[in-house]
Amino acid sequence: MSTFMKNLNVTARCANQFRADKLAEVGLSGCQHSYIINICNNPGISQDALSKKLYINKSNVARQLSILEENGFIERKQSTEDKRNMLVFPTEKAKQALPVVIKVLREWSSYLSEGFTEEEIRKFTEMMDKISEKAQAYVTGKESSHEDSV
Amino acid sequence: MSTFMKNLNVTARCANQFRADKLAEVGLSGCQHSYIINICNNPGISQDALSKKLYINKSNVARQLSILEENGFIERKQSTEDKRNMLVFPTEKAKQALPVVIKVLREWSSYLSEGFTEEEIRKFTEMMDKISEKAQAYVTGKESSHEDSV
Repeated sequence: MSTFMKNLNVTARCANQFRADKLAEVGLSGCQHSYIINICNNPGISQDALSKKLYINKSNVARQLSILEENGFIERKQSTEDKRNMLVFPTEKAKQALPVVIKVLREWSSYLSEGFTEEEIRKFTEMMDKISEKAQAYVTGKESSHEDSV
Repeated sequence: MSTFMKNLNVTARCANQFRADKLAEVGLSGCQHSYIINICNNPGISQDALSKKLYINKSNVARQLSILEENGFIERKQSTEDKRNMLVFPTEKAKQALPVVIKVLREWSSYLSEGFTEEEIRKFTEMMDKISEKAQAYVTGKESSHEDSV
């Protein structure tokens, strides 16, 4: 395996542990930050749209949303237009957790960036952006070919 | 949030979907590749050592190992030296899955690297290495301060 993907995975897992440590006080796990951000920024988003936005498969999204609902962070309502589609809304608890989530993510990024020049971070961010676009293209391509075949 | 961490997380999630798609044929999920590699390369590794190697917390490691055991990929034996410690061994099924896992990881890295020059990939890999070292230092520091306080 090329080292960059191994180290990328390791970095993502360490980030998960950092968030888990720092977000325990608001009752969130290490992988729920992206749900809170996206649901607070898009109240009423459908489960399917959330799955696409997060690049997490539908069954994992459904499982995390059940946990978030149980813990009082979100509410789900059936769409009046399409009854199979569930819409997701943030609760007051989620809205209050949002600034903490953002603060923790900034803390982690600042910690990782320490000791690098602005130029080094700029170049890395630029390349990470391109790599991420390719990664997203795989998932998006898969979804559209699946939709074509339905 | 700095874009590089968001895009890093997105890339890791897309990678997870790629692995899930490609490893379904051998009965592995998208996040089990690192367990198979580490257990095949270190037969008899303890659960705690595996947790440190993978940068995944102990309870998540225990959960994944239960699933891998249930699906016939690993066997766990109590350590004769320390009965609280469980040692993990790969089964024939894991050994047979290993080359498929490695092939799938290489495929993903090749896909992501397409269209970039060798120099671009070399620089990105170098920077990813340094960022990953910082990320690992957070988890390792946390563990050693915890061990100090025990």
